[in-house]
Amino acid sequence: MSTAGQSIQCRAAIAWEAGKPLSIEQVEVAPPKAHEVRVKILYTGVCHTDAYSLSGTDPEGVFPSILGHEGGGVVESVGEGVTEFAVGDHVIPLYTAECRKCKFCTSGKTNLCQSVRATQGRGLMPDETTRFTCNGKPIYHYMGCSTFSEYTVVADVSLVKVDPKAGLDKVCLLGCGITTGFGAATRTAKVTKGSSVAVFGMGCVGLSVVQGAVFNQASRIIAIDINPGKEKVSREFGATDFINPKDYDRPIQEVLVEMTDGGLDYTFDCTGNVEVMRSALEACHKGWGESTIIGVAAAGKEIATRPFQLVTGRVWRGSAFGGVKGKTEMGGLVQQYLDGTLKVDEFVTHSFNLEEINKAFDVMHDGTCIRAVLDVQH
Amino acid sequence: MSTAGQSIQCRAAIAWEAGKPLSIEQVEVAPPKAHEVRVKILYTGVCHTDAYSLSGTDPEGVFPSILGHEGGGVVESVGEGVTEFAVGDHVIPLYTAECRKCKFCTSGKTNLCQSVRATQGRGLMPDETTRFTCNGKPIYHYMGCSTFSEYTVVADVSLVKVDPKAGLDKVCLLGCGITTGFGAATRTAKVTKGSSVAVFGMGCVGLSVVQGAVFNQASRIIAIDINPGKEKVSREFGATDFINPKDYDRPIQEVLVEMTDGGLDYTFDCTGNVEVMRSALEACHKGWGESTIIGVAAAGKEIATRPFQLVTGRVWRGSAFGGVKGKTEMGGLVQQYLDGTLKVDEFVTHSFNLEEINKAFDVMHDGTCIRAVLDVQH
Repeated sequence: MSTAGQSIQCRAAIAWEAGKPLSIEQVEVAPPKAHEVRVKILYTGVCHTDAYSLSGTDPEGVFPSILGHEGGGVVESVGEGVTEFAVGDHVIPLYTAECRKCKFCTSGKTNLCQSVRATQGRGLMPDETTRFTCNGKPIYHYMGCSTFSEYTVVADVSLVKVDPKAGLDKVCLLGCGITTGFGAATRTAKVTKGSSVAVFGMGCVGLSVVQGAVFNQASRIIAIDINPGKEKVSREFGATDFINPKDYDRPIQEVLVEMTDGGLDYTFDCTGNVEVMRSALEACHKGWGESTIIGVAAAGKEIATRPFQLVTGRVWRGSAFGGVKGKTEMGGLVQQYLDGTLKVDEFVTHSFNLEEINKAFDVMHDGTCIRAVLDVQH
Repeated sequence: MSTAGQSIQCRAAIAWEAGKPLSIEQVEVAPPKAHEVRVKILYTGVCHTDAYSLSGTDPEGVFPSILGHEGGGVVESVGEGVTEFAVGDHVIPLYTAECRKCKFCTSGKTNLCQSVRATQGRGLMPDETTRFTCNGKPIYHYMGCSTFSEYTVVADVSLVKVDPKAGLDKVCLLGCGITTGFGAATRTAKVTKGSSVAVFGMGCVGLSVVQGAVFNQASRIIAIDINPGKEKVSREFGATDFINPKDYDRPIQEVLVEMTDGGLDYTFDCTGNVEVMRSALEACHKGWGESTIIGVAAAGKEIATRPFQLVTGRVWRGSAFGGVKGKTEMGGLVQQYLDGTLKVDEFVTHSFNLEEINKAFDVMHDGTCIRAVLDVQH
């Protein structure tokens, strides 16, 4: 029996307030309005950005809300005017939309579509309302995705269809971490063949940068993490060196510049720590080294360096969602996964049911976790 | 009678110590050693960097020294092994050398030749000695040029031959300011046709950035200076708008972002003020705006911003000598001047004899001066 056009009662993990564990509740998910799609979420990763927003330090965090932005599911129903999706399509929600019409999409210079940015940042659908209620109380959306729910509603610009041959329990991770790191190396920095690369922070994003550097044929890839337990996995992903800053009593940028005869061609911050961002920039080679910031810093934190670092040829840039245009490029990434040229399975270290979502948050802080994937329907 | 192989007695302006006026003295200029060239300096510009070093705040400033790095002259004699230059050649000294052999020169990615960098930074010739003495006391070189002297000795990698049809009283300015600004727009930032540009600081470098933006066919060029007297000359060089930050009671980046529907495609700092560098970055358009730092900051000063500025697509870079490779590209710039596609004469607002050099430093702080050129032989 079709549920199209009707509200759906289902389970979701609600963040009632900052700093508190999530709570599994019965929610009501309204049908999609025009240019919206309702998706049955099958799997979702749990990302540090979810934890950041839950902590209350994200200036865009609103409560109560349904977090989660790294999901995979199946289209349950579509709203008026939706032609790109049909019931049963396998889809991945996109926290970075792609409308193909706005100044940003048509610029050819950025993936930062702004079509739904303003409402998304306030936890609302484009019509300024929410599709979620719990006991009659509106519940906010999150990053245009809200994947910690059995059903969610997203704008049609915030969704991409994927090949059903790809397991959603794996490619859900392309919704954020893997794409963010892989894209930062291959799209934003455009790591060149034979170059040297240093990556700070060996979580899902950092390992994905390593993978991108390998894909672009960098000749030396230095993985950096203060957790020595990350060495093994870093090397499995293709790092040629592993450095623990705690093993040195001087700034790690000095160590790296020495190790590499003048510095790296490319560096990446995947930590969100502004001091690490500085080290990453200053570890770059004079004349041409480029540093890309990927990590999200705590609210109000600033990066700093001497301008001489830039005047002598280093470049400081940043990357969001790996510079990837979700609708245009996701299909290619999924195909790479199916072809065996993009590791995805290797990132899944933990699996939980939706009920166990708080455990998934807990294991993030455990050095052995890369990604926990939730089976949302169980 | 040839002076080759002999020491030359001549006049030079010596900086005996930080913060004191220069003093015209008789100096002895030793003959050039292997791979060195002795140049009779005919004209030299006076640049803010000379004043910066004289002030004592330049960490690389050494005293006593002969400042000046924006000169034009004629080859008087050459040292052993010099094949690129002959007596009588018209030349411009290069504070950014080009050896065509080092890792930097052969990288294809930067103009920052390092062949003589270490000794140059300490005021010495590559053999770790000086060619200048005054009453038997060694006098240090400056930026590999020391153009405030009737004769100077430079490394052959630090010199470029120019077409003698170009007046050295004008093209001496290609030795620093004009090339730095024009190159920053055309080589470093590579301003694109139809783009929007903002330039902070309408001195010689800033006006040269404006000129470079015009050359690259930017459609909107906003000149910014706290001196309202700069509006006229900014527009003469091609600025389409002039903004004085003192006319606004909010951050100038906000004003610029509003004026340009989201920010500039390219911005340039030509002030050396780290707060202005921040404004320049934050005035860039989300998604693609690129800010280039050209100005030299006071020792120890740092730039800062929120990393979100970069993560949302802005790029922060710097430029030294406009990204121009002196030997490879100076000929083309001189040709552009001769062809009438590069303004140079328009920068010369003041002329003095060598004896009047301290007046040239004084007028720099006068808002009507763009460049003062010294007739060194008179």
